[in-house]
Amino acid sequence: MIDYNVLGGKCNRGLSVVDSYKLLKGADVLGEEEMFLACTLGWCIEWLQAFFLVLDDIMDDSHTRRGQPCWFRVPQVGFIAVNDGIILRNHISRILRRHFKGKPYYADLLDLFNEVEFKTASGQLLDLITTHEGEKDLTKYNITVHRRIVQYKTAYYSFYLPVACALLLSGENLENYSAVENILVEMGTYFQVQDDYLDCYGDPEFIGKIGTDIEDYKCSWLVVQALERADESQKHILFENYGKKDPACVAKVKNLYKELSLEALFQEYENESYKKLIADIEAQPSIAVQNVLKSFLHKIYKRQK
Amino acid sequence: MIDYNVLGGKCNRGLSVVDSYKLLKGADVLGEEEMFLACTLGWCIEWLQAFFLVLDDIMDDSHTRRGQPCWFRVPQVGFIAVNDGIILRNHISRILRRHFKGKPYYADLLDLFNEVEFKTASGQLLDLITTHEGEKDLTKYNITVHRRIVQYKTAYYSFYLPVACALLLSGENLENYSAVENILVEMGTYFQVQDDYLDCYGDPEFIGKIGTDIEDYKCSWLVVQALERADESQKHILFENYGKKDPACVAKVKNLYKELSLEALFQEYENESYKKLIADIEAQPSIAVQNVLKSFLHKIYKRQK
Repeated sequence: MIDYNVLGGKCNRGLSVVDSYKLLKGADVLGEEEMFLACTLGWCIEWLQAFFLVLDDIMDDSHTRRGQPCWFRVPQVGFIAVNDGIILRNHISRILRRHFKGKPYYADLLDLFNEVEFKTASGQLLDLITTHEGEKDLTKYNITVHRRIVQYKTAYYSFYLPVACALLLSGENLENYSAVENILVEMGTYFQVQDDYLDCYGDPEFIGKIGTDIEDYKCSWLVVQALERADESQKHILFENYGKKDPACVAKVKNLYKELSLEALFQEYENESYKKLIADIEAQPSIAVQNVLKSFLHKIYKRQK
Repeated sequence: MIDYNVLGGKCNRGLSVVDSYKLLKGADVLGEEEMFLACTLGWCIEWLQAFFLVLDDIMDDSHTRRGQPCWFRVPQVGFIAVNDGIILRNHISRILRRHFKGKPYYADLLDLFNEVEFKTASGQLLDLITTHEGEKDLTKYNITVHRRIVQYKTAYYSFYLPVACALLLSGENLENYSAVENILVEMGTYFQVQDDYLDCYGDPEFIGKIGTDIEDYKCSWLVVQALERADESQKHILFENYGKKDPACVAKVKNLYKELSLEALFQEYENESYKKLIADIEAQPSIAVQNVLKSFLHKIYKRQK
C-alpha cells in the first residue's frame, strides 16, 4: 500500500525541502545527519501528498493516478482505502516522533503538519461544495472563489510546507516568517493558474496527459476569466457547453476562450505575477531566504509542463 | 457537521477523563482551570470517536448511527464525509494547540493522540481484512484474531486514552505506566466480549438495539468460542448458517450456542476476568491509580447494556 501510493510521483515537494535547506544553511557545511533529517521531512511531505491523493481520488470518483488505477479501484481494496489513507497520515507523526522528538522545534513541526493538513482539508471542502455539490451552477465561479480554493487546497502544502520545514530545521521561528508564507501562497496560486492554463493550452505529448477541465466542470482560472469578460450571448454559450463530455461542446468553449483572448491574458498574468513576486522577494531582509524563494520561483516560471 | 457527528453519544469516554482526573488529584482541590482542561481533553476523545465513526460507517456501508442516518447517507453529503472526518480529526490538534501549547506535556499529548489513532486504524485494518474481505471464511476466526482486533480497534482509544489523558494532566510520565496501559487494554477486551455477548443475549428493549452480529458475519467472541468447542457436525451447522439474513439460519446458530452452553461460558469468563483485573489493579503501587482503575471496572462489571 505504501509503495503503491507514496512512490511514483515527481517528488517536487519533498526535494524542495532539501533544496531550500541547502540554500538556507550553505550546501558545503551540511553534515550527514542534517541531510538525513532534511530528507526525512521531504518524505513526510510526500506521505502527506499520498494521504491526500488516496482520499481525494475516492471523493472525486477518479480512475487513474500517476499512470495506474487509483488505489481504491484496486481489486480487494475498495473502501479500505479510506483507512489506508489514515494509516499513511499516522505514519507521518510516527516518523516525526522517531527522528525529531527531543529537538527544540518538535512541537512546532507537529503543529505545522497539523495546521497545513487542516488548511488542505478546508480547501478540499471548499472545492467539493463549490464544484461538485448539487446542480452545476457557473454563477458560483469567480476569481475570489478560485483563489480561496487554490490557496487552501494546494498552495499551503505544496509551496509553504517545504520551505517552512527547512526553516524549522534551520532553527528559525515560523512566527517571524509570515511575509515568506504570503509569498509562497501567492506562488502556489500562480502555479495552479499555470496548471489551469496548461490543461487547455499545454502540449498533451509533453505534459503526459490530456486535459479535461472543461468536460469536468472545473473551477479553472480560464472559465473564471471567461465569465468575467463574456457578454450575455457569450455567457449563454458557456452555460450551455461547459461541463459536457461532447467534443463539440468542448470546442465551443475553447473557441470562446479564443474570442476572449485568454491566452494573451494569461501571458499578462504570468508576467505581472512574476514581477510582483520578485519585488516581494527582494523586500525580504535575508539574502538566503531570497535565494530560497527565487530558486522556487525559477523552477516554475514559464514552465511548459 | 460537528453537531451531527460529535453529539448524540453517551460521552462515556470523555467523562472518564474527568472522573479519572478527579480521582487522581482529589476532587476537592481542583480549580476551575484544571477542570476546564480535563473537560477539553474529554471532548477531544469525543471528537476522535466522531472521526472514527464517520469513516467506519462509510467503510462498513452502515445505515444508521445513534438513531439517525449515518453522516455520509445524508443527502448532499455523500463522500464529502471522508473529508469531514479529516476535518474532525484536524480540530483535535487545533483544540490541543489552543489550550495546551506551552504546557510541559504538550508534545506527549500530541504523541498520545497520534499513537492511539494509529493503533485504532490498525485495528480497523485488521478487522476489515479479516472480517470483510473476499469470501466469508470462518476458519480465519479464532480467539487470537478476536483479541488482536478488539485491543487495537477499541480498547486503546476507549479505555487507555481517557486515563492516559488524566495522567498527563496530572503531570505524570506515561513511560512509568505501562502496567496501567496493559490493565486498561485488558479491561477494554473484557468490555468488547460483553458487547458481543449482549448482542445475542441482551434485552433489545433495554439495550436500545437489536443485535445482528450473526447475520453480519461478525468475528464475535461467541462464534469464536463456538468454533473452538464444536465437533465436526456442529461446525458444519455454523459454516452453513453463520452470516445469513434468514431468521431460520440465525435460529440454528443460536440453538448451537445453547447446546455449547455459551451463556455459562460467558459467566465464567466474566468472573475470571474480573478476578484477574482486580488482582492486577491491587498490585499497583498508587492507591489513587487503583481507585481510577477500579472505578472504571465497576462502571462496566456485569453491565446489562
